[in-house]
Parts: sequence; structure tokens; C-alpha cells
Amino acid sequence: DHNDTINFSNRGMTLEDEINKSNSYYLRNEIAVIHKKPTPIQIVSVDYPKRSAARIKEAYFRKASTTDYNGVYHGYYIDFDAKETKNKTSFPLKNFHKHQVEHMRQCLKQQGICFAIIKFVNDQSVFVLRASTLITYWDRQATGGRKSIPRSVIEKRGFPIHYRINPLLPYLSAVDLMID
Amino acid sequence: DHNDTINFSNRGMTLEDEINKSNSYYLRNEIAVIHKKPTPIQIVSVDYPKRSAARIKEAYFRKASTTDYNGVYHGYYIDFDAKETKNKTSFPLKNFHKHQVEHMRQCLKQQGICFAIIKFVNDQSVFVLRASTLITYWDRQATGGRKSIPRSVIEKRGFPIHYRINPLLPYLSAVDLMID
Ligand SMILES: [Mg+2]
Ligand SMILES: [Mg+2]
Repeated sequence: DHNDTINFSNRGMTLEDEINKSNSYYLRNEIAVIHKKPTPIQIVSVDYPKRSAARIKEAYFRKASTTDYNGVYHGYYIDFDAKETKNKTSFPLKNFHKHQVEHMRQCLKQQGICFAIIKFVNDQSVFVLRASTLITYWDRQATGGRKSIPRSVIEKRGFPIHYRINPLLPYLSAVDLMID
Repeated sequence: DHNDTINFSNRGMTLEDEINKSNSYYLRNEIAVIHKKPTPIQIVSVDYPKRSAARIKEAYFRKASTTDYNGVYHGYYIDFDAKETKNKTSFPLKNFHKHQVEHMRQCLKQQGICFAIIKFVNDQSVFVLRASTLITYWDRQATGGRKSIPRSVIEKRGFPIHYRINPLLPYLSAVDLMID
């Protein structure tokens, strides 16, 4: 019943904020060690002033060659990316870079647990989707397949994550189901 | 026999360069997916010029809260840091930050494979040392223990890594021994 759903999500928070908050909970409670990787930066020029911290004067954002999050949970290697969409009926594949999908493919070959956390911001619903499903849709694009994953597929093949107080987004419960 | 040892190491390369090169080999050959994390940066000011890339105008280096390298190998979570020392007879513990050691402790609790790759630059010898050994020495400092790990201990309890052509630093062979 929709009316029973308490929405703990903070509308000022991005999905990444919500995941970071959940990861802090998992870390604090010794449930998992999962961190967001720093944003990759190309540094061009740095000042080294006497008696104060080095100051980066010119730098540029680089494209990430991996997903944003990884870590360890009960001996399992965990690897995922988090993506929000304003779309209501499908998730556009252009939200992923080629490099990120290749990285997931590589991790799967090494028996990592790989997935995407997808949030439909319109109704604040969040799903964990296996990387294998994502990759299937990604690859089909090359042979005339659609450029997005229908929401109905994400609902059927993904795992819904319901907001709680702590952890805010208990996505490791979906990981438990994927491991099983 | 020392004279039989071919030294493939490039004296212009840092240990991190050598590891990055080895990781590229492991990745290309589908042996493991291990990456160096980007340096964490605190961004203060960014310019968004029309028709060209966003330019970071002011930023500062932040201290890493984890180790530099992690990834997946045969389903195992791999996590380590790389440290060089000019010392000849011991490895100074001040090369590690408290946060890095705490991170290793957390990863061990999650059954990750955690270690340090230590290079004595003087004679170009490289060792893999289990995080548990490092942590033992780290913790003893608080109760009057020495501030370094003797090289003799690293030689006895660590795994020597010999330079090769490809991968330059075959450190996963030490991981195989640790898993065993
Ligand atoms: Mg992302
Ligand atoms: Mg380092």
C-alpha cells in the first residue's frame, strides 16, 4: 500500500549523498567497507607557498575509468555506480560511459558483485540492477536495440530498495539476494 | 646468487608507476581488476567557461582516508598501499597514516586480502607484507614499541617480489601464497 510507505529520503540529498550516508552506517557498524572513489582530476599547475598548504591553481575534471563505488562485504568484492534519472518510464543508457560498462564486465569476470543503483527521482524509487542485465541492454544498442531500459524491466529484474532510517538506503539487502 | 638477478626496474619509475604498469598487465590479460584510486582533492573554486571544459581554479590536496589500491582477483577483494623507503635496515611506520591503518583493519574484518607493498629503494628490493603484521607493529608503538619494522622481519614474514618483464612487479604471486 502506497500510503504506508514512509519516505525517509531527504529531497535536498542526491542519490550519492544517500549512498554515502548508508556506507557510513555500514562502516560504523562493521557491516561493510565501501567508499566512493575521489573524482579524478588532471592537475596542470600547483603553487607551493612557504608555510602553507600546496594550492592547485589549474586542473580539469577527467572521465572516470571505473565505477564510483567499491569495497568489501563478507569477503565479497562489491562494485557499483549510482545513477539518477528524471525519466519516469525508462532509464536512459547514456547515463553510463563506455568505460564504466567495460569495467563492470571486467569485474564480473573476476567474480565481483557488480550492479547499478538506479533512482527514479520523480517518485523517489530506488532499484539495484545487476550489471549483467545492464550489460545485456548496453550491448543490444549496437545491433539496433533501444537506448534505455524500460522501468518495467527494472521493476521485474531489479531489487527495490526502500528508504529506512538507518541505513538510509539498505542496498546490501539486495546484495544478499544476489549472492544467494 | 645476486649476480643472476636481472634488474628490470626502471630507476626513473616510482614504485607506484611500477605497480600501475603491473596492474595494466593484469587487467589486459584478465587476471585481476585493480586500480589506483584518484588523489582526493578539495575543490574550492571552478570556472565554467562557455564552449570549453570546466576549469578548477583553486583546490587543495586532502589526506586519503583509505589505501591507494583496491580491486578484485578471482573473487577476492584486494586492498593495499605502496610505500618506498630510503632506509636500509628498517621501514619507518610514519610512512603510514592512522586512517590507512584503520582502513586495513576494517577490510581484514570483512575478509579482504590486505597488505603493503614495501620497496627499499637503496637496493631495489620489494616485499609484500601482510596488513596483520603491519598492524601488530603499528599498535605496539602505543605501548613503547619501536617506530619502524626491522628489515629482517620484513624479509622473514613478508614475500619478496622479483622484477620481471611482464608484469614488472608480479605481486599477485604473493597474494596466491597469502590465500593458500
Ligand atoms: Mg556516478
Ligand atoms: Mg601511497
